[in-house]
Amino acid sequence: MIDGLVTAIRTKNIDAVMSSYAPDLVAFDIVPPLQFVGAGAFKKPWQDVFARFETVDYEVRDLSITAGDDVAFSHSLNRIRGTMTNGQNTDLWLRSTACFRKIDGRWLIVHLQASVPVDLASGKAVVDLKP
Amino acid sequence: MIDGLVTAIRTKNIDAVMSSYAPDLVAFDIVPPLQFVGAGAFKKPWQDVFARFETVDYEVRDLSITAGDDVAFSHSLNRIRGTMTNGQNTDLWLRSTACFRKIDGRWLIVHLQASVPVDLASGKAVVDLKP
Repeated sequence: MIDGLVTAIRTKNIDAVMSSYAPDLVAFDIVPPLQFVGAGAFKKPWQDVFARFETVDYEVRDLSITAGDDVAFSHSLNRIRGTMTNGQNTDLWLRSTACFRKIDGRWLIVHLQASVPVDLASGKAVVDLKP
Repeated sequence: MIDGLVTAIRTKNIDAVMSSYAPDLVAFDIVPPLQFVGAGAFKKPWQDVFARFETVDYEVRDLSITAGDDVAFSHSLNRIRGTMTNGQNTDLWLRSTACFRKIDGRWLIVHLQASVPVDLASGKAVVDLKP
């Protein structure tokens, strides 16, 4: 399922991305606000990403999955990089946590958090870290 | 267990905080680096927090818990505030995700992520959001 999500991101397939989320998704994303409540609310940030990137590559590293019968979680370091529509290149590692429930026999993401660390003294996001 | 962790933070009880973590904890914290691997590595950031705060209050809001037999996760918006040893006041809402396993009959945190959103255009952490 995570492989499918990576392919969906690389091909900028918004419907495939959204199909991995439960309707009652609560997402803590790298960008504001504090939280997106409901999968519908989390469509726009992905549309914004896909609009900003001319080409996008997405890589999942150090993936750990812990799964029970119908509750599971995963964490990984994910790299998003590519060429923006404004011509700039982006190459960013973020921390990704995904929480799953098996609903009607199918695993869906019900919660996720994605972030970069911040330097609280300077108030700056730390976007140049590599694993 | 989460109530106990809140009390441990409010009383700056580092041993009680650490007792909630599994030895193989992987933590994605609000501050760098990208990840802390092993509970031992995650002691220093808490010691730093407790050293910086003269008094610390900690509040958990919008808590959601999903638990299977031996795998569980929770998410919430957590507020940390208080008076720093340098005299300044801090009041910060962060997003908190905790992932648990029941090990030898006891729930322990094996993974967590805590963060604030960032404005990727300016590179600034967004630390003034309230739920």
